[in-house]
Amino acid sequence: MDLYSGYINRLIGELSLLPGIGYKTAQRLAFHMINMPKESVKKLADSMVEAREKVKYCKCCYTLTDNDLCPICSDNARDHKQIMVVENTRDMNAYEKTGRYNGVYHVLHGAINPSLGTGPNDIKLKELIERLEREVDEVIIATNSSIEGETTAMYISKLIKPTGVKVTRIASGVPVGGELEYIDEVTLSRALDARVEL
Amino acid sequence: MDLYSGYINRLIGELSLLPGIGYKTAQRLAFHMINMPKESVKKLADSMVEAREKVKYCKCCYTLTDNDLCPICSDNARDHKQIMVVENTRDMNAYEKTGRYNGVYHVLHGAINPSLGTGPNDIKLKELIERLEREVDEVIIATNSSIEGETTAMYISKLIKPTGVKVTRIASGVPVGGELEYIDEVTLSRALDARVEL
Repeated sequence: MDLYSGYINRLIGELSLLPGIGYKTAQRLAFHMINMPKESVKKLADSMVEAREKVKYCKCCYTLTDNDLCPICSDNARDHKQIMVVENTRDMNAYEKTGRYNGVYHVLHGAINPSLGTGPNDIKLKELIERLEREVDEVIIATNSSIEGETTAMYISKLIKPTGVKVTRIASGVPVGGELEYIDEVTLSRALDARVEL
Repeated sequence: MDLYSGYINRLIGELSLLPGIGYKTAQRLAFHMINMPKESVKKLADSMVEAREKVKYCKCCYTLTDNDLCPICSDNARDHKQIMVVENTRDMNAYEKTGRYNGVYHVLHGAINPSLGTGPNDIKLKELIERLEREVDEVIIATNSSIEGETTAMYISKLIKPTGVKVTRIASGVPVGGELEYIDEVTLSRALDARVEL
Protein backbone atom coordinates (compact mmCIF):
# COMPACT_ATOMS: atom_id res chain seq x y z
CA MET A 1 0.00 0.00 0.00
CA ASP A 2 1.19 3.49 -0.76
CA LEU A 3 1.63 5.04 2.64
CA TYR A 4 2.53 8.54 1.73
CA SER A 5 0.50 10.81 -0.42
CA GLY A 6 1.07 10.48 -4.15
CA TYR A 7 2.24 14.10 -4.26
CA ILE A 8 4.86 13.47 -1.60
CA ASN A 9 6.01 10.31 -3.34
CA ARG A 10 6.39 12.17 -6.61
CA LEU A 11 8.36 14.93 -4.91
CA ILE A 12 10.61 12.44 -3.10
CA GLY A 13 11.23 10.72 -6.44
CA GLU A 14 12.16 13.98 -8.16
CA LEU A 15 14.45 15.05 -5.33
CA SER A 16 16.23 11.67 -5.27
CA LEU A 17 17.38 12.32 -8.84
CA LEU A 18 19.62 15.16 -7.65
CA PRO A 19 23.29 14.36 -7.10
CA GLY A 20 24.21 13.35 -3.55
CA ILE A 21 20.55 13.16 -2.50
CA GLY A 22 19.51 9.64 -1.50
CA TYR A 23 16.02 8.45 -0.61
CA LYS A 24 16.29 9.35 3.07
CA THR A 25 17.51 12.88 2.38
CA ALA A 26 14.87 13.35 -0.31
CA GLN A 27 12.25 12.25 2.20
CA ARG A 28 13.54 14.69 4.81
CA LEU A 29 13.59 17.53 2.28
CA ALA A 30 10.11 16.70 0.98
CA PHE A 31 8.60 16.75 4.47
CA HIS A 32 10.40 19.97 5.20
CA MET A 33 8.90 21.53 2.08
CA ILE A 34 5.40 20.39 3.07
CA ASN A 35 5.85 22.35 6.29
CA MET A 36 7.38 25.44 4.70
CA PRO A 37 5.20 28.53 4.07
CA LYS A 38 3.60 28.25 0.63
CA GLU A 39 5.33 31.41 -0.60
CA SER A 40 8.76 30.04 0.33
CA VAL A 41 8.17 26.86 -1.66
CA LYS A 42 6.95 28.93 -4.59
CA LYS A 43 10.03 31.17 -4.34
CA LEU A 44 12.40 28.21 -4.35
CA ALA A 45 10.59 26.61 -7.28
CA ASP A 46 10.64 29.87 -9.23
CA SER A 47 14.35 30.38 -8.56
CA MET A 48 15.08 26.96 -10.03
CA VAL A 49 13.08 27.49 -13.20
CA GLU A 50 14.31 31.06 -13.63
CA ALA A 51 17.98 30.13 -13.15
CA ARG A 52 17.65 27.26 -15.61
CA GLU A 53 15.98 29.48 -18.20
CA LYS A 54 17.95 32.68 -17.90
CA VAL A 55 21.51 31.72 -17.09
CA LYS A 56 23.77 31.53 -20.13
CA TYR A 57 27.42 30.99 -21.03
CA CYS A 58 29.72 34.01 -21.20
CA LYS A 59 30.55 34.45 -24.90
CA CYS A 60 34.23 34.76 -24.09
CA CYS A 61 35.15 32.52 -21.15
CA TYR A 62 32.05 30.28 -21.02
CA THR A 63 31.38 30.74 -17.33
CA LEU A 64 27.71 30.88 -16.34
CA THR A 65 26.38 34.41 -16.28
CA ASP A 66 23.26 36.56 -16.69
CA ASN A 67 24.62 38.65 -19.57
CA ASP A 68 26.48 38.08 -22.84
CA LEU A 69 29.80 38.77 -21.13
CA CYS A 70 30.60 37.86 -17.54
CA PRO A 71 31.72 40.59 -15.09
CA ILE A 72 35.34 39.45 -15.36
CA CYS A 73 35.52 39.34 -19.17
CA SER A 74 33.90 42.77 -19.37
CA ASP A 75 36.33 44.26 -16.82
CA ASN A 76 39.07 46.27 -18.52
CA ALA A 77 41.17 46.35 -15.34
CA ARG A 78 41.84 42.61 -15.70
CA ASP A 79 44.75 41.27 -17.70
CA HIS A 80 43.13 39.75 -20.78
CA LYS A 81 46.44 38.29 -21.96
CA GLN A 82 46.58 35.84 -19.09
CA ILE A 83 44.00 33.04 -19.24
CA MET A 84 43.43 30.57 -16.40
CA VAL A 85 41.78 27.36 -17.58
CA VAL A 86 39.43 25.77 -15.01
CA GLU A 87 37.05 22.82 -15.13
CA ASN A 88 33.98 24.69 -13.91
CA THR A 89 32.56 27.94 -12.58
CA ARG A 90 33.00 26.84 -8.97
CA ASP A 91 36.76 26.40 -9.49
CA MET A 92 36.86 29.87 -11.03
CA ASN A 93 35.08 31.19 -7.97
CA ALA A 94 37.58 29.44 -5.69
CA TYR A 95 40.50 31.19 -7.41
CA GLU A 96 38.67 34.48 -7.50
CA LYS A 97 38.24 34.30 -3.72
CA THR A 98 42.02 34.23 -3.25
CA GLY A 99 42.09 37.79 -4.60
CA ARG A 100 45.53 36.99 -6.03
CA TYR A 101 44.66 36.55 -9.69
CA ASN A 102 44.05 39.45 -12.04
CA GLY A 103 43.87 37.67 -15.39
CA VAL A 104 40.78 36.20 -17.04
CA TYR A 105 39.45 32.65 -17.11
CA HIS A 106 38.33 29.94 -19.48
CA VAL A 107 35.79 27.45 -18.19
CA LEU A 108 35.98 24.01 -19.82
CA HIS A 109 32.79 22.63 -18.23
CA GLY A 110 34.36 19.26 -17.59
CA ALA A 111 37.58 17.36 -18.06
CA ILE A 112 38.69 14.68 -20.48
CA ASN A 113 37.45 11.42 -19.00
CA PRO A 114 37.61 8.39 -21.32
CA SER A 115 35.82 6.16 -18.81
CA LEU A 116 32.79 8.47 -18.91
CA GLY A 117 33.18 8.95 -22.65
CA THR A 118 34.07 12.65 -22.26
CA GLY A 119 36.50 13.52 -25.03
CA PRO A 120 38.22 16.80 -26.02
CA ASN A 121 35.20 17.78 -28.12
CA ASP A 122 32.84 17.48 -25.17
CA ILE A 123 34.46 20.32 -23.24
CA LYS A 124 35.01 23.97 -24.27
CA LEU A 125 38.48 23.30 -25.68
CA LYS A 126 37.96 24.41 -29.27
CA GLU A 127 36.68 27.68 -27.79
CA LEU A 128 39.92 28.06 -25.81
CA ILE A 129 42.06 27.57 -28.90
CA GLU A 130 39.98 30.16 -30.75
CA ARG A 131 40.75 32.69 -28.02
CA LEU A 132 44.48 32.25 -28.69
CA GLU A 133 44.04 33.93 -32.06
CA ARG A 134 44.03 37.20 -30.14
CA GLU A 135 47.18 38.20 -28.27
CA VAL A 136 47.69 35.95 -25.24
CA ASP A 137 50.83 35.83 -23.06
CA GLU A 138 50.14 32.86 -20.86
CA VAL A 139 47.67 30.04 -20.37
CA ILE A 140 47.62 28.81 -16.76
CA ILE A 141 46.10 25.35 -16.50
CA ALA A 142 44.21 25.03 -13.23
CA THR A 143 42.27 21.82 -13.83
CA ASN A 144 41.85 19.53 -10.81
CA SER A 145 44.74 17.46 -9.54
CA SER A 146 42.80 14.27 -10.40
CA ILE A 147 43.60 11.80 -13.17
CA GLU A 148 41.07 13.51 -15.43
CA GLY A 149 42.37 16.96 -14.56
CA GLU A 150 45.97 15.94 -15.20
CA THR A 151 45.04 14.24 -18.48
CA THR A 152 43.23 17.38 -19.59
CA ALA A 153 46.18 19.55 -18.56
CA MET A 154 48.61 17.40 -20.59
CA TYR A 155 46.28 17.44 -23.58
CA ILE A 156 45.83 21.21 -23.54
CA SER A 157 49.54 21.81 -23.04
CA LYS A 158 50.42 19.67 -26.09
CA LEU A 159 47.77 21.46 -28.11
CA ILE A 160 48.92 24.97 -27.23
CA LYS A 161 52.71 24.64 -27.11
CA PRO A 162 53.14 24.64 -30.93
CA THR A 163 51.43 28.05 -31.05
CA GLY A 164 54.26 29.54 -28.99
CA VAL A 165 52.00 30.68 -26.15
CA LYS A 166 53.49 30.07 -22.69
CA VAL A 167 51.63 27.26 -20.88
CA THR A 168 51.92 26.78 -17.12
CA ARG A 169 50.29 24.48 -14.58
CA ILE A 170 49.39 25.40 -10.99
CA ALA A 171 51.71 23.66 -8.50
CA SER A 172 50.76 20.55 -6.63
CA GLY A 173 52.11 19.87 -3.15
CA VAL A 174 51.21 19.66 0.49
CA PRO A 175 48.15 21.82 1.23
CA VAL A 176 48.69 24.57 3.78
CA GLY A 177 47.81 23.21 7.20
CA GLY A 178 48.10 19.63 5.89
CA GLU A 179 49.74 17.09 8.17
CA LEU A 180 52.33 15.04 6.33
CA GLU A 181 51.28 11.74 7.88
CA TYR A 182 47.83 12.00 6.30
CA ILE A 183 48.98 12.99 2.83
CA ASP A 184 49.31 10.45 0.01
CA GLU A 185 52.67 9.46 -1.44
CA VAL A 186 52.10 10.99 -4.87
CA THR A 187 51.47 14.41 -3.34
CA LEU A 188 54.50 14.03 -1.08
CA SER A 189 56.73 13.08 -4.03
CA ARG A 190 55.51 16.04 -6.03
CA ALA A 191 56.07 18.38 -3.11
CA LEU A 192 59.63 17.07 -2.91
CA ASP A 193 60.23 17.47 -6.66
CA ALA A 194 58.87 21.00 -6.58
CA ARG A 195 60.84 22.06 -3.49
CA VAL A 196 62.03 25.67 -3.37
CA GLU A 197 65.13 27.16 -1.75
CA LEU A 198 64.54 29.13 1.44
CA MET B 1 32.28 41.55 -7.32
CA ASP B 2 29.47 39.11 -7.84
CA LEU B 3 31.08 36.26 -9.69
CA TYR B 4 28.15 34.07 -10.38
CA SER B 5 25.05 35.12 -12.14
CA GLY B 6 22.40 36.77 -9.97
CA TYR B 7 19.99 33.94 -10.81
CA ILE B 8 22.44 31.30 -9.63
CA ASN B 9 23.19 33.26 -6.46
CA ARG B 10 19.50 33.54 -5.71
CA LEU B 11 19.01 29.81 -6.29
CA ILE B 12 22.00 28.91 -4.11
CA GLY B 13 20.57 31.17 -1.40
CA GLU B 14 17.15 29.51 -1.56
CA LEU B 15 18.62 26.00 -1.54
CA SER B 16 20.86 26.80 1.45
CA LEU B 17 17.73 27.41 3.52
CA LEU B 18 16.81 23.73 3.32
CA PRO B 19 17.77 21.54 6.30
CA GLY B 20 21.13 19.81 6.00
CA ILE B 21 22.04 21.76 2.85
CA GLY B 22 25.06 24.01 3.38
CA TYR B 23 26.50 26.52 0.92
CA LYS B 24 28.74 24.01 -0.88
CA THR B 25 25.94 21.49 -1.39
CA ALA B 26 23.56 24.26 -2.48
CA GLN B 27 26.18 25.38 -5.01
CA ARG B 28 26.61 21.83 -6.33
CA LEU B 29 22.83 21.38 -6.63
CA ALA B 30 22.36 24.77 -8.31
CA PHE B 31 24.98 24.00 -10.96
CA HIS B 32 23.47 20.58 -11.49
CA MET B 33 20.07 22.18 -12.07
CA ILE B 34 21.52 24.63 -14.59
CA ASN B 35 22.72 21.62 -16.56
CA MET B 36 19.52 19.61 -16.25
CA PRO B 37 17.04 19.53 -19.16
CA LYS B 38 14.59 22.42 -18.80
CA GLU B 39 11.61 20.06 -18.51
CA SER B 40 13.21 18.17 -15.62
CA VAL B 41 13.75 21.39 -13.67
CA LYS B 42 10.16 22.41 -14.38
CA LYS B 43 8.92 19.00 -13.23
CA LEU B 44 10.84 19.18 -9.96
CA ALA B 45 9.63 22.74 -9.32
CA ASP B 46 6.03 21.75 -10.06
CA SER B 47 6.24 18.73 -7.76
CA MET B 48 7.33 20.96 -4.92
CA VAL B 49 4.57 23.50 -5.37
CA GLU B 50 1.93 20.84 -6.00
CA ALA B 51 2.91 18.77 -2.96
CA ARG B 52 2.90 21.88 -0.77
CA GLU B 53 -0.52 22.94 -2.03
CA LYS B 54 -2.36 19.65 -2.22
CA VAL B 55 -1.10 17.52 0.63
CA LYS B 56 -3.29 17.65 3.74
CA TYR B 57 -3.59 16.05 7.15
CA CYS B 58 -5.66 12.89 7.52
CA LYS B 59 -8.76 13.93 9.50
CA CYS B 60 -8.33 10.98 11.82
CA CYS B 61 -4.62 10.25 12.39
CA TYR B 62 -3.10 13.49 11.05
CA THR B 63 -0.60 11.83 8.77
CA LEU B 64 0.04 13.62 5.46
CA THR B 65 -2.21 12.38 2.70
CA ASP B 66 -3.94 13.35 -0.56
CA ASN B 67 -7.47 12.67 0.68
CA ASP B 68 -9.57 13.40 3.76
CA LEU B 69 -8.71 10.03 5.24
CA CYS B 70 -5.37 8.27 4.77
CA PRO B 71 -5.26 4.73 3.29
CA ILE B 72 -4.71 3.22 6.75
CA CYS B 73 -7.53 5.04 8.52
CA SER B 74 -9.92 4.18 5.70
CA ASP B 75 -8.93 0.48 5.77
CA ASN B 76 -11.53 -1.63 7.61
CA ALA B 77 -9.13 -4.58 7.84
CA ARG B 78 -6.97 -2.65 10.31
CA ASP B 79 -7.62 -2.74 14.04
CA HIS B 80 -8.97 0.72 14.83
CA LYS B 81 -8.91 0.01 18.57
CA GLN B 82 -5.12 -0.05 18.66
CA ILE B 83 -3.44 3.33 18.12
CA MET B 84 0.31 3.72 17.70
CA VAL B 85 1.48 7.26 18.48
CA VAL B 86 4.46 8.42 16.37
CA GLU B 87 6.27 11.74 16.01
CA ASN B 88 5.96 12.01 12.25
CA THR B 89 4.84 10.36 9.03
CA ARG B 90 8.32 8.94 8.37
CA ASP B 91 8.23 7.05 11.66
CA MET B 92 4.82 5.71 10.72
CA ASN B 93 6.26 4.58 7.42
CA ALA B 94 9.15 2.87 9.20
CA TYR B 95 6.73 0.82 11.33
CA GLU B 96 4.50 0.12 8.38
CA LYS B 97 7.49 -1.38 6.54
CA THR B 98 7.92 -3.97 9.27
CA GLY B 99 4.57 -5.45 8.18
CA ARG B 100 4.05 -6.48 11.81
CA TYR B 101 1.54 -3.88 12.88
CA ASN B 102 -2.13 -4.01 12.02
CA GLY B 103 -3.52 -1.20 14.15
CA VAL B 104 -3.86 2.45 13.19
CA TYR B 105 -1.60 5.43 13.92
CA HIS B 106 -1.66 8.89 15.38
CA VAL B 107 0.92 11.35 14.09
CA LEU B 108 1.92 14.05 16.59
CA HIS B 109 4.00 16.12 14.15
CA GLY B 110 6.70 16.76 16.70
CA ALA B 111 7.58 16.06 20.29
CA ILE B 112 7.49 18.12 23.45
CA ASN B 113 10.73 20.11 23.45
CA PRO B 114 10.92 22.92 26.03
CA SER B 115 14.25 24.14 24.67
CA LEU B 116 12.65 24.77 21.26
CA GLY B 117 9.49 26.08 22.90
CA THR B 118 7.41 23.14 21.64
CA GLY B 119 4.76 22.44 24.25
CA PRO B 120 1.90 19.91 24.40
CA ASN B 121 -0.36 22.31 22.51
CA ASP B 122 2.05 22.54 19.58
CA ILE B 123 1.69 18.88 18.66
CA LYS B 124 -1.43 16.89 17.74
CA LEU B 125 -2.05 15.75 21.30
CA LYS B 126 -5.51 17.22 21.88
CA GLU B 127 -6.53 15.39 18.70
CA LEU B 128 -5.23 12.10 20.16
CA ILE B 129 -7.26 12.55 23.35
CA GLU B 130 -10.35 13.28 21.26
CA ARG B 131 -9.90 9.97 19.49
CA LEU B 132 -10.10 8.16 22.83
CA GLU B 133 -13.77 9.12 23.09
CA ARG B 134 -14.43 6.27 20.69
CA GLU B 135 -13.64 2.72 21.83
CA VAL B 136 -9.88 2.21 22.06
CA ASP B 137 -8.13 -0.81 23.60
CA GLU B 138 -4.51 0.30 23.58
CA VAL B 139 -2.33 3.28 22.86
CA ILE B 140 1.22 2.24 21.90
CA ILE B 141 3.65 5.14 22.31
CA ALA B 142 6.34 4.92 19.63
CA THR B 143 7.95 8.34 19.95
CA ASN B 144 11.73 8.46 19.48
CA SER B 145 14.05 7.19 22.15
CA SER B 146 15.45 10.73 22.56
CA ILE B 147 14.97 13.04 25.54
CA GLU B 148 12.11 14.79 23.72
CA GLY B 149 10.55 11.49 22.68
CA GLU B 150 10.75 10.11 26.22
CA THR B 151 9.35 13.31 27.70
CA THR B 152 6.46 13.18 25.26
CA ALA B 153 5.87 9.50 26.04
CA MET B 154 5.72 10.22 29.79
CA TYR B 155 3.40 13.17 29.25
CA ILE B 156 0.98 11.20 27.06
CA SER B 157 1.01 8.25 29.39
CA LYS B 158 0.07 10.44 32.39
CA LEU B 159 -2.66 12.08 30.34
CA ILE B 160 -4.23 8.85 29.13
CA LYS B 161 -3.92 6.57 32.15
CA PRO B 162 -6.83 8.19 34.10
CA THR B 163 -9.14 7.33 31.16
CA GLY B 164 -8.50 3.65 31.78
CA VAL B 165 -7.14 2.99 28.30
CA LYS B 166 -4.08 0.68 28.26
CA VAL B 167 -0.89 2.62 27.45
CA THR B 168 2.30 0.86 26.32
CA ARG B 169 5.71 2.02 25.12
CA ILE B 170 7.84 0.27 22.48
CA ALA B 171 10.88 -1.43 24.05
CA SER B 172 14.33 0.09 24.01
CA GLY B 173 17.43 -2.10 23.92
CA VAL B 174 20.34 -3.19 21.78
CA PRO B 175 19.46 -2.87 18.08
CA VAL B 176 19.61 -6.11 16.11
CA GLY B 177 23.10 -6.43 14.62
CA GLY B 178 24.42 -3.86 17.10
CA GLU B 179 27.83 -4.53 18.63
CA LEU B 180 27.81 -4.04 22.37
CA GLU B 181 31.10 -2.17 22.47
CA TYR B 182 29.70 0.63 20.35
CA ILE B 183 26.44 1.02 22.24
CA ASP B 184 25.95 3.73 24.87
CA GLU B 185 25.54 2.90 28.55
CA VAL B 186 21.94 4.06 28.82
CA THR B 187 20.88 1.67 26.07
CA LEU B 188 22.88 -1.16 27.65
CA SER B 189 21.29 -0.51 31.06
CA ARG B 190 17.82 -0.50 29.55
CA ALA B 191 18.54 -3.71 27.67
CA LEU B 192 19.60 -5.29 30.97
CA ASP B 193 16.51 -4.05 32.80
CA ALA B 194 14.23 -5.32 30.06
CA ARG B 195 15.92 -8.73 29.77
CA VAL B 196 13.68 -11.68 28.92
CA GLU B 197 13.97 -15.34 29.92
CA LEU B 198 15.13 -17.74 27.21
